[in-house]
Amino acid sequence: MRATKRRPVVRLDADGGRRARADTLAGEEPLEIRVAGAPYSITMRTPGADFDLVAGFLVSEGLVWHAGQIMSIAYGAGVEPDGSRSYNLVEVRLAAGVAPPDPSLSRHVYTSSSCGICGTASIEAVTRASRFPPSGDGLRIRLPELLALSERLRQGQQVFDSTGGVHAAGLFTVTADGRADLACLREDVGRHNAVDKTVGWALREGSLPLSGTVLQVSGRASFELVQKAYMAGIPALAAVSAPSALAVELAAECGITLVGFSRGASVNVYAGEHRILT
Amino acid sequence: MRATKRRPVVRLDADGGRRARADTLAGEEPLEIRVAGAPYSITMRTPGADFDLVAGFLVSEGLVWHAGQIMSIAYGAGVEPDGSRSYNLVEVRLAAGVAPPDPSLSRHVYTSSSCGICGTASIEAVTRASRFPPSGDGLRIRLPELLALSERLRQGQQVFDSTGGVHAAGLFTVTADGRADLACLREDVGRHNAVDKTVGWALREGSLPLSGTVLQVSGRASFELVQKAYMAGIPALAAVSAPSALAVELAAECGITLVGFSRGASVNVYAGEHRILT
Repeated sequence: MRATKRRPVVRLDADGGRRARADTLAGEEPLEIRVAGAPYSITMRTPGADFDLVAGFLVSEGLVWHAGQIMSIAYGAGVEPDGSRSYNLVEVRLAAGVAPPDPSLSRHVYTSSSCGICGTASIEAVTRASRFPPSGDGLRIRLPELLALSERLRQGQQVFDSTGGVHAAGLFTVTADGRADLACLREDVGRHNAVDKTVGWALREGSLPLSGTVLQVSGRASFELVQKAYMAGIPALAAVSAPSALAVELAAECGITLVGFSRGASVNVYAGEHRILT
Repeated sequence: MRATKRRPVVRLDADGGRRARADTLAGEEPLEIRVAGAPYSITMRTPGADFDLVAGFLVSEGLVWHAGQIMSIAYGAGVEPDGSRSYNLVEVRLAAGVAPPDPSLSRHVYTSSSCGICGTASIEAVTRASRFPPSGDGLRIRLPELLALSERLRQGQQVFDSTGGVHAAGLFTVTADGRADLACLREDVGRHNAVDKTVGWALREGSLPLSGTVLQVSGRASFELVQKAYMAGIPALAAVSAPSALAVELAAECGITLVGFSRGASVNVYAGEHRILT
């Protein structure tokens, strides 16, 4: 079970060329997460940093917010069809006193009683859930540093270099004089997984809330990614591509700086411009 | 509730320029799907073609496979916080005799009893579920036609043109002499939603199984996208970017032609090369 796999591929060219070779592809495997002895979730992910992924997912879900709430994270028993050990089941034991997830609760149903489900209700549900509202975070980053993050993320992507097919998330710690240092970079076929892996890394390092950091992601900025940043106390999210309208609304509501189309020469600022020093 | 929204944005340039303007962003709103009177799923999606999305999602989930199994799809009651009607709840009534989803069944838990959850078990679960195995499909497409699909998809993307931030899926019908005609193009912030929208369109048109078609998608090819193609009987999936290793394995197992990095001058063929005429 590895982050990449070799598979045969045939390349066909418009001019009639045909070449068979081996290609390196991103790994994608289901991961079952069990919490306090009960099934909790299954996600398709790129193997690697699995415990970070699980820890970060629990933060995103609002189940935990500091490392002491998790007693252990370990691979469960299981074998592959060929008899080798499986690494696709992770068991989480919570510390004494930590409430396990409510099995009767469908975690994605958050309709309010007073109105139909909508973006505004979704935003309200999120803003009620975070332990670490970052609105007052003192982070300030110089524009040239911010503009450089997407290329620094790209340069750190090992799996992308070999496969061309994975997303990345990079946590950058910003110093008092506005310089950004890469603290953690994670890759995955799923954008949300890459972010969970960085957040889980931070939880396990005892670094939550992630005050004073910028999260740079490789793709678009969806509502879900802003939500994950918010749950971890990250005050600034930068995306290489476009944000959705709801992502912008959530960022503005939460006091998160959100930038998009960050590709070196310019950046679009959708919320929280005060944190960018020009 | 529209597919796009206007939001203020500030563009900062490396050379010190600062320009405030209005930007067009992709809409993203939660959609609650209720089936036979019970909550079934909530997904974040770009508003538009909602009934196609719901119908296609039910096909992907294996609940229905022809239009007669659905009695009605309609927006449910609900209001936005401002009092206007909400379009974020869709109610599905199934035809008499169609089994509703089992509420006790967690649909993403498909661990087999004999081995740990793994890619192979995931593939087995999928291959057991489809009504329309496309392995014997007689589709043949000429390479120049196949190479042109990504650009034709791109040219048809109306929401992308204004936002730069949505995925697309296009269903192309291939004629007996190997020419591809665009039958349906749908856009969404979620890749899986764009595919569900095209499949649902086909279900409602009475066009399932989608024999003789190629599905072109704008991004990567994940396991989930191959699974959706398989459930709809689509014999060929083309992606602009890379597939995952598990997507390749599922395509090979299901008899689906899978190509990646399809960007005009060449294409990588990962499975089912016999359907491509060079």
